[in-house]
Amino acid sequence: MTEDCLDRVEEPIPAPADNEVLLRVLSLSVDPTNRIWMREEDSYLPAVEIGAVVRAAGLAEVVETKREGFAVGDLVLGMPGWQDYWLLSGDDMANVIPPGLEINDLLSIYGGTGVTAWFGVEDICALEPGDAFVVSGAAGGVGSVAGQLAKLKGAGIVVGIAGSDDKCRWVVDELGFDACINYKTEDVAARLVELCPEGIDAYFDNVGGEILDAALANLAIGARIAVCGAISTYNSDDPIGVKNTANLIMKRARMEGFLILDYLDRFLEAILGLAPLVAEGKLKYATEVVDGLENAPATLNRLFTGDHTGKLIIKLSERA
Amino acid sequence: MTEDCLDRVEEPIPAPADNEVLLRVLSLSVDPTNRIWMREEDSYLPAVEIGAVVRAAGLAEVVETKREGFAVGDLVLGMPGWQDYWLLSGDDMANVIPPGLEINDLLSIYGGTGVTAWFGVEDICALEPGDAFVVSGAAGGVGSVAGQLAKLKGAGIVVGIAGSDDKCRWVVDELGFDACINYKTEDVAARLVELCPEGIDAYFDNVGGEILDAALANLAIGARIAVCGAISTYNSDDPIGVKNTANLIMKRARMEGFLILDYLDRFLEAILGLAPLVAEGKLKYATEVVDGLENAPATLNRLFTGDHTGKLIIKLSERA
Repeated sequence: MTEDCLDRVEEPIPAPADNEVLLRVLSLSVDPTNRIWMREEDSYLPAVEIGAVVRAAGLAEVVETKREGFAVGDLVLGMPGWQDYWLLSGDDMANVIPPGLEINDLLSIYGGTGVTAWFGVEDICALEPGDAFVVSGAAGGVGSVAGQLAKLKGAGIVVGIAGSDDKCRWVVDELGFDACINYKTEDVAARLVELCPEGIDAYFDNVGGEILDAALANLAIGARIAVCGAISTYNSDDPIGVKNTANLIMKRARMEGFLILDYLDRFLEAILGLAPLVAEGKLKYATEVVDGLENAPATLNRLFTGDHTGKLIIKLSERA
Repeated sequence: MTEDCLDRVEEPIPAPADNEVLLRVLSLSVDPTNRIWMREEDSYLPAVEIGAVVRAAGLAEVVETKREGFAVGDLVLGMPGWQDYWLLSGDDMANVIPPGLEINDLLSIYGGTGVTAWFGVEDICALEPGDAFVVSGAAGGVGSVAGQLAKLKGAGIVVGIAGSDDKCRWVVDELGFDACINYKTEDVAARLVELCPEGIDAYFDNVGGEILDAALANLAIGARIAVCGAISTYNSDDPIGVKNTANLIMKRARMEGFLILDYLDRFLEAILGLAPLVAEGKLKYATEVVDGLENAPATLNRLFTGDHTGKLIIKLSERA
């Protein structure tokens, strides 16, 4: 995506009609899926239309309200999109957040990022003690938490795959992964065989493409692949094909996609699981906060160039 | 595979030692997996070694026995391989078959073929009434049974994919499929969208490659893909890559490989399910019997050129 795909427009701050709420946007979550929604075709949500506000999850504070259940000053988690003020109407997803939680945590470890990692490891990978666990995008928001959760849940070995030596050092030295493969300088397929000589029991895939193919080539019998993301393909009209799907047969393996949207009614379960680990300092997560909506396009692109570690958040304004 | 990969060797008929059984081979099952076992690398079974007998399932009759549980004249289902006489020793898989069943049925509808279709539809596709069900290799041994089972279990639509108009006519007119796509002359992806406008709920894949990719492009939310075979890839060192795996995320879909070897202890369950359907004439299956072991290599190759309908069996000799 180039910046000339987007336009910055100034408009008057809208006034809420009956049953609407006006909110000032505080922070926006920067997620690979933002780019999916900008594709021409619909995905799991309708494509963002030409002329519409870029869709994004975020936190906002109520400024004026004509709707029951929302009071001025309330903190709301929802889909404000890339704008300074958000007019919330009937059907929009929005949850008032109880006070006392750190704003950046709500968009990272207790938001889609941490909760995605939780259900990917628990439900889709169905991690068992002793498993050889591999995660790509290991230094990203989701991947860095997924690897730590796997380790805490008793994985025999946790291997990350990331795009720089610095990232690899971070996940091994700071987050406690057992090993990390730099896919830009190492032969991923060969290293996976070395590190997981009995095969991979659970692979948490954030990238798709060639790295998914390397993991498919080295599965253990009964392996589970959680397909969480395919960031290597989102910017491409002609993604690299995966050649080793027949290995799913040989290894009686399962490959399953999931979306955190399907777990909205189970968020609390994940938060209750994550909170003690955070409180005891057993779960580390990096958050980089970028100031200013004008930096949103360039920040989103950094997800695709790999130029970031941990969760990216755009900050628009402070709480009143 | 070319015939010069193989050698026909005459050797004396062996005499069974203690705990061994000598059998005369009656029939051999011709399966795509025979080709997998001939690849250089190990698969779910060790690769067939240079100089060894080609591995294949089949039926044989006991000629001489020095092992308890086997009597002269017993019919035995196991892995005799491509040879006229089979010396059964300790660890070989072998089951004595009760009398009264048709020999060709034991290698087709009640053998790996029908039972694979049964568990693929029941367990892996987890077929629900109303599902849009698609099967590739639809005129093959497994595919032709899978489509009929899906129909009998209440699928909303059953679509086959096969390689000739004759095969398509057979599965629609004789087997009761709702539609069939000739992948050699039609645009599979476009036809799948036409035939399953709400997306495919269950796809039974026997071929992999481009056809798998077309199915992945048109999944319904919550779709299940049973990866039973990938015949388009077995003869290739550089198979065509599958580009649409990211759709597993968008559609929260599951793709799972399976092998009938893992269901050996549940064969009876499938046979008890299949037998009444066969008896009532609700389940049709084609069997082509080719005479003579010398025709085995050419017959195996016909699986890959698509030059067959239904189950291929090589007949070596009659029961005594």
